[in-house]
Amino acid sequence: MKIIIVGATGTIGKVVTTELSKRHTIVKAATKNSDVKVDITSIESIKEMFRQVGSFDALISATGSAHFGLFDTMTEADFYKGIKSKMMGQINLVMVGKDFITDNGSFTLTSGILHKDPIRNGVGLSFVNGALNSFVTSAAIEMKRGIRINVVSPGLVEDSYAALGAAFPGHIPVSMPRVVQGYLKSVEGFGTGQLIEIY
Amino acid sequence: MKIIIVGATGTIGKVVTTELSKRHTIVKAATKNSDVKVDITSIESIKEMFRQVGSFDALISATGSAHFGLFDTMTEADFYKGIKSKMMGQINLVMVGKDFITDNGSFTLTSGILHKDPIRNGVGLSFVNGALNSFVTSAAIEMKRGIRINVVSPGLVEDSYAALGAAFPGHIPVSMPRVVQGYLKSVEGFGTGQLIEIY
Repeated sequence: MKIIIVGATGTIGKVVTTELSKRHTIVKAATKNSDVKVDITSIESIKEMFRQVGSFDALISATGSAHFGLFDTMTEADFYKGIKSKMMGQINLVMVGKDFITDNGSFTLTSGILHKDPIRNGVGLSFVNGALNSFVTSAAIEMKRGIRINVVSPGLVEDSYAALGAAFPGHIPVSMPRVVQGYLKSVEGFGTGQLIEIY
Repeated sequence: MKIIIVGATGTIGKVVTTELSKRHTIVKAATKNSDVKVDITSIESIKEMFRQVGSFDALISATGSAHFGLFDTMTEADFYKGIKSKMMGQINLVMVGKDFITDNGSFTLTSGILHKDPIRNGVGLSFVNGALNSFVTSAAIEMKRGIRINVVSPGLVEDSYAALGAAFPGHIPVSMPRVVQGYLKSVEGFGTGQLIEIY
């Protein structure tokens, strides 16, 4: 398969890229150091990426940011940081990409555990994750040409534990090999509309 | 209690208003035919509403719109219809209202069954509902002064069945008295961070 991995240089993306490279053709997409450049906060940038890449069989998105900070002082603009990047950035990858993907292709997005297991400072991420999960559940039933769509919701991954563990009291870090399995299930498996929770 | 009901003139809002009026002071908020006017798509309008109403003990939001239409032809602007109204409109009611609400007050938002039981044409609503559910789960743990927040997720209500039933094949309509109980649980009960599903 020809697989676009958006966020291929990130913590999760680079490991997923290494694994899938063993048996597929990977197109690494990121803001830099990649085969193709993309800024997911811009639908024009997303359109340009697909025009460059052309037809493909699967897209994995392991990217997108959102506001991290105290709920009490959050502004409307803080909510829109996540809306424009992790939420609509990933949704736009699907909405534009569905015109370029081959029959029976697949989209795999990334949300995260904070949709149901919240932490302090996490509201700006939680609501984005919830939106992505329900987007996938709903979009799956309207996909045409056998196209599948799933979302991987990883817990705090071991590779981020040193940097982020203090912000996630009591969360059990998940090993990166387990997280990678979630992406393999979506891309190489046959399911659609699945929320693949790796906790 | 002094309870603000935003969307008091709507299908659910008017019935909740009738029930809670029996034992509380209700401030009806809507775009028209109400005690106080509010347009939830404008944070300035929301601020003006709270300035007019002043201190209050509970807020119920049973309002907000989103795009309804085929997934295949949805545009980025269609997604933003729901983001600006049902999603950020209700979130902004909380973010602004938390500075006006009394100690131990409560916020009750409204999402809906499409977050996990999708229908054709429903993507624009589904992702908004998912965002609201996870917002409430997460905001609840950071609320101060004993303030509570819950979200009611109703199925298709009987009162909407004649108009909307054809769009919800196989969905079992829920009776309005059952839906009203969800709002009573949130406002007169003691829970917080709850997703109150009425299906």
